[in-house]
Amino acid sequence: MQEPVKDIAGYTYGAQEIPQSPVSLTDLEQLKMSVGFTDEDVIYLALAGEVLADQTRSIVDHWRSGIIAGIPHLARHSRGLDGQALPDYLARSNRRFEQWILDTCRRPYDQDWLNYQQEIAVRHTSIKKNRTDQVISTPYIPLRDIIVFITVMNDTIRPHLAAKGHAVDDVDKMHAAWRRSMQLQIALFAKPYADPAFGLNEW
Amino acid sequence: MQEPVKDIAGYTYGAQEIPQSPVSLTDLEQLKMSVGFTDEDVIYLALAGEVLADQTRSIVDHWRSGIIAGIPHLARHSRGLDGQALPDYLARSNRRFEQWILDTCRRPYDQDWLNYQQEIAVRHTSIKKNRTDQVISTPYIPLRDIIVFITVMNDTIRPHLAAKGHAVDDVDKMHAAWRRSMQLQIALFAKPYADPAFGLNEW
Repeated sequence: MQEPVKDIAGYTYGAQEIPQSPVSLTDLEQLKMSVGFTDEDVIYLALAGEVLADQTRSIVDHWRSGIIAGIPHLARHSRGLDGQALPDYLARSNRRFEQWILDTCRRPYDQDWLNYQQEIAVRHTSIKKNRTDQVISTPYIPLRDIIVFITVMNDTIRPHLAAKGHAVDDVDKMHAAWRRSMQLQIALFAKPYADPAFGLNEW
Repeated sequence: MQEPVKDIAGYTYGAQEIPQSPVSLTDLEQLKMSVGFTDEDVIYLALAGEVLADQTRSIVDHWRSGIIAGIPHLARHSRGLDGQALPDYLARSNRRFEQWILDTCRRPYDQDWLNYQQEIAVRHTSIKKNRTDQVISTPYIPLRDIIVFITVMNDTIRPHLAAKGHAVDDVDKMHAAWRRSMQLQIALFAKPYADPAFGLNEW
């Protein structure tokens, strides 16, 4: 089911240049236990990947244009410092955003996945935001906004999970697996913000 | 609807000794926007408070004895360092846990609430864990476990929200309001962990 990833600017999943995550596979196993993530969730995420594959563009457009664009303290993070639009930046990060939906559903949650989770996290902080796309924008996205916006994503993904006519029980299970994965990823995204080695003040 | 809080050991909501939160009411308003928390959620949380009022003990017992007790890396945080049970510690923190469910539903999200959110957060870190109850236990609860366990609480609260025979649509709205509040609170609980003023290494 794994489709080859088309050329996506700045998308470096599995690349040698991605450093090893400070989060271990043992940490990940414990997180999966704490969040209640099971082998059944892997199966239902794979199904979600099939269901969402041709919807990622409209999902990301809805999140970006339908929601984030209307919330100034969120919208500014993909704009210039004076508020001007940066269409190329938005387009590039949207393509990675789309791919992240598929990676959530299809990638094995292994060392490569952990490494790229850390890379995604760091790209939200002042350590690396803007650098991938060579833009001048806000220096970081506050951790608190990443944490809370997940709830909006969780609420709005459901109709997309139901869009291919699956039984309500299957949609429920896809949705529960999605929410568990999201919260697991939020924990991983919090790592650099809470890491005194970086000394960030970006809550 | 606000019932007087019975004497709960270590429960100091609104007390003068609670420091002002470093999180401002402006931050809170922005977080509410980011998570999609509206006045309708306040109404449905109040309804949830009525529904849950006589169920808090069984809910907390389920979380503690039914789930956390079976996950060693979580259970250890209410035990002694050699793993022995600390029944008084557990009983005291469970009573506060119960009250927190009601506070989630009934308290206005104002400065007192923000201050106590920060107090709860700090009591999970090495700054203050164990001190309220004068026990010797693990020095802190890792931020990552707090983040992910919320999903389990969100999943398991739903039957309790439905237990008083409300229409499915009302249960859905209570549940959505609960999830938004939980994620808002997770953002607030992350604050001390991500605050370089504390320099914690407790992800």
